[in-house]
Amino acid sequence: MSQGLRERKKAETRAALADAALALADEHGPDRVTVEAIAEAAGVSPRTFFNYFSTKDEAILGVVRLDQSPLRDDLVSRPANEAPLDALRAAFVASVERLQDDPDRWVRRRRLVQQHPHLAVRWAAHTADLEHDMVVEIAARLGLDPDRDTYPGVVVGAAMAAVRVAMAVWQARSDRSLAELFDEVFGQLSAGLTPP
Amino acid sequence: MSQGLRERKKAETRAALADAALALADEHGPDRVTVEAIAEAAGVSPRTFFNYFSTKDEAILGVVRLDQSPLRDDLVSRPANEAPLDALRAAFVASVERLQDDPDRWVRRRRLVQQHPHLAVRWAAHTADLEHDMVVEIAARLGLDPDRDTYPGVVVGAAMAAVRVAMAVWQARSDRSLAELFDEVFGQLSAGLTPP
Repeated sequence: MSQGLRERKKAETRAALADAALALADEHGPDRVTVEAIAEAAGVSPRTFFNYFSTKDEAILGVVRLDQSPLRDDLVSRPANEAPLDALRAAFVASVERLQDDPDRWVRRRRLVQQHPHLAVRWAAHTADLEHDMVVEIAARLGLDPDRDTYPGVVVGAAMAAVRVAMAVWQARSDRSLAELFDEVFGQLSAGLTPP
Repeated sequence: MSQGLRERKKAETRAALADAALALADEHGPDRVTVEAIAEAAGVSPRTFFNYFSTKDEAILGVVRLDQSPLRDDLVSRPANEAPLDALRAAFVASVERLQDDPDRWVRRRRLVQQHPHLAVRWAAHTADLEHDMVVEIAARLGLDPDRDTYPGVVVGAAMAAVRVAMAVWQARSDRSLAELFDEVFGQLSAGLTPP
């Protein structure tokens, strides 16, 4: 099997497991879902399940390892000399476009997270890991220390806040596209947050 | 009793309950603390406890109602024509100065939150409530809609991210003061996040 084909098959198996986990959690409640049931629904063995996810909660949330995160890949692939805020914006735009391929999955996952505190804790931990990983990447680009210099954390934290606001406003009103809202919120950041 | 004296006595009782709750949670673990024990340690009745906090977890975290939040008061008291980012900065600086009056309390509370997921969930909910309240206040100042306009959420979210980074870097290194780090992170926001 070629490298590319193998990678594609792995991504398909991961997606099948995450979809099965989400569907089962939605139907029976996350507490009543087992790894065995998820594996069976995806047509693989429980042993194979653990090649992709460490726990059923990770599968339900579709939490991938950071080194397999598409958002991270999008950020790493941006030109080295691009302004950090522009690189972050491009990565988030690509990530949100993928999400819009299947908005229903996003809505169901979000509902589960809101209803089950232990999933909310796991999700918050994943978001924090992802944020830290982006801080490390931005720091590396600038030759800064991710833990002892402020800039990488501030630019990533502000970008993530802007993305959260754009998504929330997009959910609240149908008269504005997500692309337009992304333009607006990142424009506010690059204009130094002067009031409109 | 005068209005001012009554308010001061209420603040003292609230602080005594929160201190007792934190000390007991630290000593016995939050799961083994009861409202009765907290009330007894603070020298009030359980009934009085519930005038100040709805649950023992709220007392352990010192979570006050939003309309009693000092951070909110600091923000509301800023001049109406001040730039939102400057008003937020001033409110956060005042809040952090209060926290530095008793850094030990902050450290103990932070450790409990890190060790007990249900406290982390409660704390995250409180932070989200506080953030939303600040968004509502900034929106009111500008005549914007807090849920349908992006600017209030972006400026508050970016400011909160900057504060988190300043505090984390301050914990990681002793050679820089918190005041200096606040100057730096808010400077980065007002400069449009151009790299240093």
